[in-house]
Amino acid sequence: MLSAFLGHASAIAIASPVVSIVGIRRQTYGEMKHVGVVEKQREMPTFPQSFPMNGGDGPHSYIHNSSYQKVAIDGAKEKTSEAILKNLDLELLNRNSDANILRIADFGCSIGPNTFEVVQNIIDTVKQKTLKENNAYIGAPLEFQVCFNDQPNNDFNTLFRTQPLSSKQAYLSVGVPGSFHGRVLPKNSLHIGHITYALHWLSTVPQHVCDKKSPALNKSYIQCNNLVDEVTEAYQVQFKKDMGDFLGARAEELVSGGLMILSGQCLPDGVPKALTWQGVVIDMIGDCLMDMAKLGITSKEKIELFSLPIYIPHISEFKAEIERNENFSIETMEKISHPMDYKPLTNDFITSMFRAILNTIIEEHFGDGVVNELFDRFAKKLNKYPIDFKRCKKYVNYFIVLKRK
Amino acid sequence: MLSAFLGHASAIAIASPVVSIVGIRRQTYGEMKHVGVVEKQREMPTFPQSFPMNGGDGPHSYIHNSSYQKVAIDGAKEKTSEAILKNLDLELLNRNSDANILRIADFGCSIGPNTFEVVQNIIDTVKQKTLKENNAYIGAPLEFQVCFNDQPNNDFNTLFRTQPLSSKQAYLSVGVPGSFHGRVLPKNSLHIGHITYALHWLSTVPQHVCDKKSPALNKSYIQCNNLVDEVTEAYQVQFKKDMGDFLGARAEELVSGGLMILSGQCLPDGVPKALTWQGVVIDMIGDCLMDMAKLGITSKEKIELFSLPIYIPHISEFKAEIERNENFSIETMEKISHPMDYKPLTNDFITSMFRAILNTIIEEHFGDGVVNELFDRFAKKLNKYPIDFKRCKKYVNYFIVLKRK
Repeated sequence: MLSAFLGHASAIAIASPVVSIVGIRRQTYGEMKHVGVVEKQREMPTFPQSFPMNGGDGPHSYIHNSSYQKVAIDGAKEKTSEAILKNLDLELLNRNSDANILRIADFGCSIGPNTFEVVQNIIDTVKQKTLKENNAYIGAPLEFQVCFNDQPNNDFNTLFRTQPLSSKQAYLSVGVPGSFHGRVLPKNSLHIGHITYALHWLSTVPQHVCDKKSPALNKSYIQCNNLVDEVTEAYQVQFKKDMGDFLGARAEELVSGGLMILSGQCLPDGVPKALTWQGVVIDMIGDCLMDMAKLGITSKEKIELFSLPIYIPHISEFKAEIERNENFSIETMEKISHPMDYKPLTNDFITSMFRAILNTIIEEHFGDGVVNELFDRFAKKLNKYPIDFKRCKKYVNYFIVLKRK
Repeated sequence: MLSAFLGHASAIAIASPVVSIVGIRRQTYGEMKHVGVVEKQREMPTFPQSFPMNGGDGPHSYIHNSSYQKVAIDGAKEKTSEAILKNLDLELLNRNSDANILRIADFGCSIGPNTFEVVQNIIDTVKQKTLKENNAYIGAPLEFQVCFNDQPNNDFNTLFRTQPLSSKQAYLSVGVPGSFHGRVLPKNSLHIGHITYALHWLSTVPQHVCDKKSPALNKSYIQCNNLVDEVTEAYQVQFKKDMGDFLGARAEELVSGGLMILSGQCLPDGVPKALTWQGVVIDMIGDCLMDMAKLGITSKEKIELFSLPIYIPHISEFKAEIERNENFSIETMEKISHPMDYKPLTNDFITSMFRAILNTIIEEHFGDGVVNELFDRFAKKLNKYPIDFKRCKKYVNYFIVLKRK
């Protein structure tokens, strides 16, 4: 159940003892043989590792291949404005002695341009609300500070260099390196948190999924089909832990009355991942890898040790985790539509999008040169067996607003 | 008078209309001809630009060529601890409702490793003071947030990736992109600011210094000798403005009672730059460029349009700017010694150090490939005419502690 995803956010930490070869540092990768890799890895100290969206601004970069995510974010834009107008209590600013700062964080922001639009929309809305309420609680003009959060190996250089000039007048920026599954900001310092299309990234591939001696070994490789129960359960456990950690960290960072706005995707209850178009794509990528193993370009064993730190929960499962937390009141929890769900995507679009998301993680595991070959093969297979969008099940897009008690 | 410097901090913004070819974006550089470059540049919109220390962790990187700066920082380490123990008022933390956060900023931090040592020393000292004073004013354990500031094109990726693992337990980090001549942090949010070997970088090359029609055109190229009065004056005016802007921005960011700790270098009063060993080095680099112009590798005109946004003030001049500000009380202002001032540096050391500092700015102006040639020539010339350290005048190293009123 690990294999489905749509990435807005980029990078995810992997505590290496549990992820076998995926967690091995690139520079030592070439020296290792397949046999004994898992054991060797266990002896190494823990290196948290993560796989950001493809950086830079080249043709395969996330920056030029994130329009699917952009459409989803546009869809949530108006909802976000409404939520802020309705739920943000400007008086909360007065409880801080640094009363004129409003801090916003975008968790798992990746490298833009989507994150810039998201934060600008939030700022415009807060300004609108401030004007409407006649600055009742605010003396001096409000200052905005935006915290762009992602893993330390996110391409922050590109993020900073591509920031719109206008944003530099509108707010102060900081880059916040670190996994959003843990604390990244000081306690009681944040007013509005935002995360979109990022919570499906787990902090790690679950333990045992890549352990050859465990019944939870994911023999189905990266594919959606033929999953064993132990694998599914291992992912479920990890997902619950990560959601708890995420909400716990945000509860500490947000001031009382602060808002946390979440959007992303779940599976409809009872629908297996393999019946969605994204599941079909991942299955096809897995098939291409297997074809390459048959030709000796990679090996079956290497594929067996490859698992993605991604989990798309069923909607009821996700809802349960949100409701379990005691630090937030749920102000909004609803399904929204993704405009692209109602028109088929082109094969080129699908190929570019998945390449931007998977480039780093595949290169890290399979070595240099595999990515080009893999996506050439994938593009050909996709042209031969185009996705029947009408028959595929659709993800549920959620929009949630939490208020810190 | 522009040419002397020792860079700890990296990058400096240049408002392009005043800097002729220096301000031209790299990607358009190749398309331009020498004739008309200045005119073409003036028609372009203003692109603030900056020249960071050489990024990455290769042999020519700042990360591996900043030991001269490190020694200076080590020299100021104990002084910094003393200043914090003596001047930091822990009660000031209580004036914030987010009472358990202590924010530290290193302005012009570049890419490490020096900045990590600096901030760790500050944190260790604050902890020591807190323990000593029995947490009198602090309820919950203190949290530290460190703001690593430098220009947006600083190599933040390398900064984050090379951060010591231990630091991640000790404090929360943010990268703050922006020129320290302007505001980069919210008002009233900073407790301890730090800047070392960075204030000699100006926000821009002064207007007219690269204007061929102006008497202030710096015909002496990047060299120290043969400077005309108009050039010196233009640099002095720019330096005063930048110092005022720097102190003004810090006054807004620091909480009342917050500390600003500065170290760096000045010229002794009455000593021209050309008599210091750093001046000799810059003159020699200028000579090498002229040799290359004679061979057609670069042109005299291109050198004439090259000026560095750097100014080493005389000590009385620097002191006057510090004293002019009204927002800070001066707690400490003293000369300290640089341990390396008393032993000659090797030629290899000098070459590597200046290459790490100048790599970006030279490549930006003269195009790819010139840097290797230039520093090969420089190394040879330096071997032929080694610096007579005994005859050279020495910089004055200053250490200053300001307290926000």
